[in-house]
Amino acid sequence: MMSNFANQPDRRTWLNVPENSDFPIQNIPFGIFKANGEKPCVGTRIGDTVIDLHFLARQGHFKSINGLNPLVFESQYLNDFISLGKNITRKVRNRIADLFDKKNDTLTLDKRLHDWFLYPIENVEMLMPIKVGDYTDFYSSRDHATNVGTMFRDPENALLPNWLHLPVGYHGRASSIIPSGVPIRRPKGQQIPPNAKQPIFGASKLLDFELEVGFIIGKSTEMGQSISTAEAEDHIFGLVLFNDWSARDIQKWEYVPLGPFLGKSFASSISPWVVTLDALEPFRVAGEVQDPKVLPYLEFEGKKNYNLNLEVIIQTESGAAKTVSNSNFKYMYWNMCQQLAHHTVNGCNVNVGDMCASGTISGPTPDSYGSMLEISWRGTKPVQMPDGTERKFIHDGDTVIMRGFGEQNGTRIGFGEVSTKVLPAT
Amino acid sequence: MMSNFANQPDRRTWLNVPENSDFPIQNIPFGIFKANGEKPCVGTRIGDTVIDLHFLARQGHFKSINGLNPLVFESQYLNDFISLGKNITRKVRNRIADLFDKKNDTLTLDKRLHDWFLYPIENVEMLMPIKVGDYTDFYSSRDHATNVGTMFRDPENALLPNWLHLPVGYHGRASSIIPSGVPIRRPKGQQIPPNAKQPIFGASKLLDFELEVGFIIGKSTEMGQSISTAEAEDHIFGLVLFNDWSARDIQKWEYVPLGPFLGKSFASSISPWVVTLDALEPFRVAGEVQDPKVLPYLEFEGKKNYNLNLEVIIQTESGAAKTVSNSNFKYMYWNMCQQLAHHTVNGCNVNVGDMCASGTISGPTPDSYGSMLEISWRGTKPVQMPDGTERKFIHDGDTVIMRGFGEQNGTRIGFGEVSTKVLPAT
Repeated sequence: MMSNFANQPDRRTWLNVPENSDFPIQNIPFGIFKANGEKPCVGTRIGDTVIDLHFLARQGHFKSINGLNPLVFESQYLNDFISLGKNITRKVRNRIADLFDKKNDTLTLDKRLHDWFLYPIENVEMLMPIKVGDYTDFYSSRDHATNVGTMFRDPENALLPNWLHLPVGYHGRASSIIPSGVPIRRPKGQQIPPNAKQPIFGASKLLDFELEVGFIIGKSTEMGQSISTAEAEDHIFGLVLFNDWSARDIQKWEYVPLGPFLGKSFASSISPWVVTLDALEPFRVAGEVQDPKVLPYLEFEGKKNYNLNLEVIIQTESGAAKTVSNSNFKYMYWNMCQQLAHHTVNGCNVNVGDMCASGTISGPTPDSYGSMLEISWRGTKPVQMPDGTERKFIHDGDTVIMRGFGEQNGTRIGFGEVSTKVLPAT
Repeated sequence: MMSNFANQPDRRTWLNVPENSDFPIQNIPFGIFKANGEKPCVGTRIGDTVIDLHFLARQGHFKSINGLNPLVFESQYLNDFISLGKNITRKVRNRIADLFDKKNDTLTLDKRLHDWFLYPIENVEMLMPIKVGDYTDFYSSRDHATNVGTMFRDPENALLPNWLHLPVGYHGRASSIIPSGVPIRRPKGQQIPPNAKQPIFGASKLLDFELEVGFIIGKSTEMGQSISTAEAEDHIFGLVLFNDWSARDIQKWEYVPLGPFLGKSFASSISPWVVTLDALEPFRVAGEVQDPKVLPYLEFEGKKNYNLNLEVIIQTESGAAKTVSNSNFKYMYWNMCQQLAHHTVNGCNVNVGDMCASGTISGPTPDSYGSMLEISWRGTKPVQMPDGTERKFIHDGDTVIMRGFGEQNGTRIGFGEVSTKVLPAT
């Protein structure tokens, strides 16, 4: 099948791929990189090597693909490339798999050229892969919603009445989505001390991460048009890891009645390589059976969840690191197709480059919770760090690292990581 | 003063300006228009005449302004023009006032040229003036928040605890902001019938407008940077009328706990001419005294409200029209400078073209309420229309028209209108 050509599990590449790499030749993600002294452009990655697609396009290696304007590879965002449509972007992915296949000597005959299009990953800077138009955050993990409802409302009625009927979501801030490696500053804002009647102003004391996966819209719609669950995958280009930074004290004081605002809008961090939905085909699994039955526009056929291991590591300023969560994207109650069908059922249009994040992905057990709020259970169960310190929430100087991958029959397809250091408030 | 040069009240133009026009030579708003067979480009308006600034720039009429690249007038959005900064955009506004002043014959000597840059308003199509990056909606009218709190919560505690301490706001959907004249479709979505336990799916029965004013960011910030109330006006380019369409039944079922989503995201409509903050100088007034005292970052000096009359008209399919609201922008409890200071106090960055809307602007009396929810008091007080029908909310075929202007010493500066017809659900 056309879309799976690049996925062939027995394919090997002539590039070096370290053991347990997230980026075998079956992955072929897309991103924007900047080599020293060069302009940002579109690249892919195999093993620890970044491949300059702009150079390969200029050399004519994609000329067999009708409708592919090589200029899309010179853009500082993937949006123009993605806008070509899956029919073309799949051909590009397949062509890359072909060019870097061990059996193909097209690019290996003249090794002097390699310096022009192959870069060790440590020699490039990875930038924002897309220009995000609108960003939507869902709230689709049942365990997360249950944990939050239990802590802040009523353990007996932890899920609100609408939760099992629709994928709850809200609009987020697009301007402050940043790539892995860019540090964030602890935000300041209003908070209400316990039992106080007047708010105070200051740096957030309860800075938290949220472990999420984001999907990127690959095909636009017009206003008034809706996307069915069956059509949804055609509108999803690929996925990234998404850290939805949250200041719990700011959020708590502000969010009733219109939802989170400054408690979230200071930053969200993403992994820089967009892994295509095509590359994740091998990891499809069925989600939890939905009961009560959903309304017809939310019904779907087939396996729409993905078995992707997700991990969160906190690394202190001193270098002590600890894995605080091992979760999985398969735990989502509402899948991406349902999220997109719901998002557009009112006629809301989507554009290429729009981002939709999953909401915190918590599993059923404490070691799989996706936020410090849940892991430390509102600070009542601090995490012991290897350097003797403890964490209820995130400290200044900490680096939060999220990783994710699927693995099947020895082939691993992953995202790499989103790693973000927290700087003190100004 | 430099910024007020174009505002001189005794200035007259050689163009015809009808009585009570919103667009005397003292206004000089900016917009994007499309003449028959031409590409969209930047224009201004005096009286009922649209002026092609791209043509005037090409002819060299702005060449005295250093740093002005004439290409900004050929863009399909104002963003590039606005990005030049107020120092330059003010000079452009002043230069236009100079060129069209009755005492200046630069453009009147050769009338054969007029067809190249002057268009009757009815001969052009007005397009979206800006490419909106992020859109934020505030909730800053005390009367509106009190009315909603009284209807849905507790009349004794209508305002939530945070309301008097911060300008409550939330992120909205940017992709579905459309200009005046583009019809909208009644949205479909989940609703919960009274006393039901299961939601139903269908067309919204409670479609409503919200009378708002939006401001457009004119100067970007970096992440981590905050804008003080004193700096805020330097970051606000201009204002538009803003109709924040709302489906009350969809909103009611979905909005707890993360805020409005599909009840709003199907459409928001704006007036096409961006009226500069400079042009609105004459209408500054003091707002209500804020009690309790606000936190220091929300304190401000000077008059930060604007005395701008706002009107909402419903016109039925048969042509019967009725003014259902006469409100005023001066009724805002939180002013734009406070909104922007709050928005960025956590380090959230803003970009040129971002839109911030006021929230529904209701005055103290029922004839000044800014939504049908309040005007009909949840449907209990229907509005009688001149054709014998009545309105609790908006019907298919209705056109909702919002108008706004300030008036002082016989000079009126206004927005024109945002007019939107409602089509039936598909």
